Amino acid sequence: METLSTNRSFGGVQGVYSHASAETGTGMTFSVYVPPQAADLEPGAKLPVLWYLSGLTCTHANVTEKGNFRAACAEHGIIFVAPDTSPRGDDVPDDEAYDFGKGAGFFVDAVQEPWAANFRMRSYIESELPALIAEHFPADMTRQGITGHSMGGHGALTIALRNPDRFRSVSAFAPIASPLACPWGEKALGGYLGPDRDTWRKHDAVALIEDGARLDHLLVDQGTADNFLTEQLKTGLLALACRKAGIPAAIRMQEGYDHSYYFIETFMAEHIGWHAERLK
Amino acid sequence: METLSTNRSFGGVQGVYSHASAETGTGMTFSVYVPPQAADLEPGAKLPVLWYLSGLTCTHANVTEKGNFRAACAEHGIIFVAPDTSPRGDDVPDDEAYDFGKGAGFFVDAVQEPWAANFRMRSYIESELPALIAEHFPADMTRQGITGHSMGGHGALTIALRNPDRFRSVSAFAPIASPLACPWGEKALGGYLGPDRDTWRKHDAVALIEDGARLDHLLVDQGTADNFLTEQLKTGLLALACRKAGIPAAIRMQEGYDHSYYFIETFMAEHIGWHAERLK
Repeated sequence: METLSTNRSFGGVQGVYSHASAETGTGMTFSVYVPPQAADLEPGAKLPVLWYLSGLTCTHANVTEKGNFRAACAEHGIIFVAPDTSPRGDDVPDDEAYDFGKGAGFFVDAVQEPWAANFRMRSYIESELPALIAEHFPADMTRQGITGHSMGGHGALTIALRNPDRFRSVSAFAPIASPLACPWGEKALGGYLGPDRDTWRKHDAVALIEDGARLDHLLVDQGTADNFLTEQLKTGLLALACRKAGIPAAIRMQEGYDHSYYFIETFMAEHIGWHAERLK
Repeated sequence: METLSTNRSFGGVQGVYSHASAETGTGMTFSVYVPPQAADLEPGAKLPVLWYLSGLTCTHANVTEKGNFRAACAEHGIIFVAPDTSPRGDDVPDDEAYDFGKGAGFFVDAVQEPWAANFRMRSYIESELPALIAEHFPADMTRQGITGHSMGGHGALTIALRNPDRFRSVSAFAPIASPLACPWGEKALGGYLGPDRDTWRKHDAVALIEDGARLDHLLVDQGTADNFLTEQLKTGLLALACRKAGIPAAIRMQEGYDHSYYFIETFMAEHIGWHAERLK
């Protein structure tokens, strides 16, 4: 692991790091905020970890610069990890569209060519990067939470639903609730996984819940002025699935907010506080 | 005035606007955050205004995206105005260096050619933009504060020192305390104002204080790990000038912080609270 930058912020350290990923076959960059509590840990003590998965076109940098998470992480003593959204590099296949290929990994392991070799963001986020975080940071891997925005909200929900023993808390900002039911999802899952829609179900939060996966609790914020709400995000399907499954879900429609980081920054501290309660 | 974008944030509205400036002879872009209190004002009531002047290479966008001011402005009911740092456009003369020409207006009215026609950031910030803000926003121009970063800290200090009746509060983040005494300042003031250093003194916070200008109180934060501290910023000269002049100045050296927005974001809420007390 190589350190690209570190900056002091709110008494802790915001770092940006890169490593050679065996899963993606590329260099991968991610950011980690380590709060000030890390400096005063008893021997062997560790801090809880909150994962944040980003949306289409994003890298680690968007949330790192604009996400407004550091003050709250410093208050609650939480390590905040922000991975990239796809493999990168000149040798990685790409698509001209913003919603497929680089910046649009959708947190799946692709089986279709030419994507299969590099687009392994599911295994990267579920296995490879957690091992690296556990090795290099004072991270208590028994106390992990996960959140994300849009495509990253889809990633957070599906990864949490598939790994109930790993995450104590899950939330999302304007998640793509059901890729099976929206153009972004149909394009991405079809492109990466092929035409058999049954194989898509474990990458669809609504389908996972329908198929029996459960969460102890869920927090979702969704802006009412979000241009993508009706066609792409399908928040209502998630609310319905949670209700039918008995999952205690606070799915909050936030009046006048759009899909941008101006929305995310407004509710980030509240999400971190919510995770912190469950990661204590 | 043209509205380029508006986004809801912390219950208020973050807008980006442009207008044709008579001072600079160019289009100028700026951002304004109007907090939620604006929606509930009694007829004729207005809100205090905090100006933020940015540093070298910056536009309005840096602080608007990374400055972490909106939560605190929403809490205290403060309008936050972030202008650009120079005229822009293909017809505006420029210099290849990052510290002169576009992005480096230094908040002076240039008299040297080819800069004199466009580089009129002093008059723009002192007169033209305030009139536009007063016209278009619910801004109480009897309750103005000013702050800024680096070159913008220099701008905030010198504009406040020259206009004691306009500003009730002034603070700065890592300001260029004395352009007369540093390479950035010598280059910029020499280039825009010419070789007569006496004409520079009204654009130098330390010289203005030495020449009799006063502030009621001052808050400055400065990181100890700031690469520019020793050669360019000269915080010590400002502390000395304030001490000699009896200006109550909290000039706080912040251990381990650098010159970046990671530093600014850490102390922004505290600055806004400090201004809010004085703008009530």
